[in-house]
Amino acid sequence: MKTTKDKNRIPEATMRRLPRYFLQIKRLLDEGSRYVSSKKLGEYLGVKGTQIRKDLSYFGVFGKARYGYETLSLAKAIKKILGLTKQYKMVIVGAGNIGRALASYSGFHTCGFDVKYIFDVDENKIGTVISGVKVYDFDKIEQVLDKGEIDIAIISTPEDKALQAAQRLKENGVHAFYNFTSAELNSIEDAFIEDAEISHGIFKLAHRLRGKWPRKEND
Amino acid sequence: MKTTKDKNRIPEATMRRLPRYFLQIKRLLDEGSRYVSSKKLGEYLGVKGTQIRKDLSYFGVFGKARYGYETLSLAKAIKKILGLTKQYKMVIVGAGNIGRALASYSGFHTCGFDVKYIFDVDENKIGTVISGVKVYDFDKIEQVLDKGEIDIAIISTPEDKALQAAQRLKENGVHAFYNFTSAELNSIEDAFIEDAEISHGIFKLAHRLRGKWPRKEND
Repeated sequence: MKTTKDKNRIPEATMRRLPRYFLQIKRLLDEGSRYVSSKKLGEYLGVKGTQIRKDLSYFGVFGKARYGYETLSLAKAIKKILGLTKQYKMVIVGAGNIGRALASYSGFHTCGFDVKYIFDVDENKIGTVISGVKVYDFDKIEQVLDKGEIDIAIISTPEDKALQAAQRLKENGVHAFYNFTSAELNSIEDAFIEDAEISHGIFKLAHRLRGKWPRKEND
Repeated sequence: MKTTKDKNRIPEATMRRLPRYFLQIKRLLDEGSRYVSSKKLGEYLGVKGTQIRKDLSYFGVFGKARYGYETLSLAKAIKKILGLTKQYKMVIVGAGNIGRALASYSGFHTCGFDVKYIFDVDENKIGTVISGVKVYDFDKIEQVLDKGEIDIAIISTPEDKALQAAQRLKENGVHAFYNFTSAELNSIEDAFIEDAEISHGIFKLAHRLRGKWPRKEND
């Protein structure tokens, strides 16, 4: 699944901002706004208007003079860029505090990521329902999951169970893992691993406090 | 607190990997490893050895031929780079699932980030202790905090309370916020805002599943 470095690739920082643009435009749509200027959008997000115009221009998306961007078509365009025209089915493995919090995280549902099952090994949790999703016995995963049914697994087990859990999911056809533990899962072959990087944000803040790191908009 | 763009700045991707190097080297130290090669370290982390050598060379850190990096001095060097030679004092505002999970997140403590207080407005939570940290009444924050005592506040309130909570913290001398809500806090002036970007990781996985995004090591 490796790809070669592509000179035309969209900058990482641009891709990082797109979900925030999308969520803010969703909010504006809910409030009934038909248009939004890059300047106004920038004020909500703490990003310069020029940066927003540059980011969106990579995808051939441009605003209208005086009106700015039409919110509905901008939402549709970003949805397409982010690959959200399809639904993604997820499982959460580990119904501790993080797992429970993620099960009720509204951003997932808004963007077409649906949590189908939660797994745990704790008998007190199995059979309960968290934010509308039932908790199943991880040891009976084969009886619950159809192969290829699940696109993404969120790993929120204790650290020392994370690798084992991910490997068992992989045997059951899951290839993408969103890792909320501090375990390293990158030794799993032919899988997409994304670390939640909780510690990264705090390091960045520490750096900024010491004056070594510029503010967000210059990142 | 704005800074101009610095041509000599360390790449964002390098800074993003450093905490992961640090946590892995900490684990190796705990296991008693005196040396680690960039290749071996790379295997743990799913990063190429050449990339690790390049990342560390930015800071003038080099391994020894045949031995690789001395784990103890490498840990010290990264600790200095990350600004972790001092302790940072934190508060968590919002003792829901995310707040509770973060209070017990071991990565913070390992790296010198200490959660001093938790705040909530729920009478059933005030006075309880979560992972050794007492929960205080947010409405009495002025009586609890000394000005300048707290370096970083984690915001894990409901979305519609986040901005208000952060502003009140700012009035009490907190200037750095780690935002775990989907609220936008970037309108707060003269503050460092870091979004936990939970949705970002999931978008990235969705992209990768559709073959549009390279694997981690090429990021």
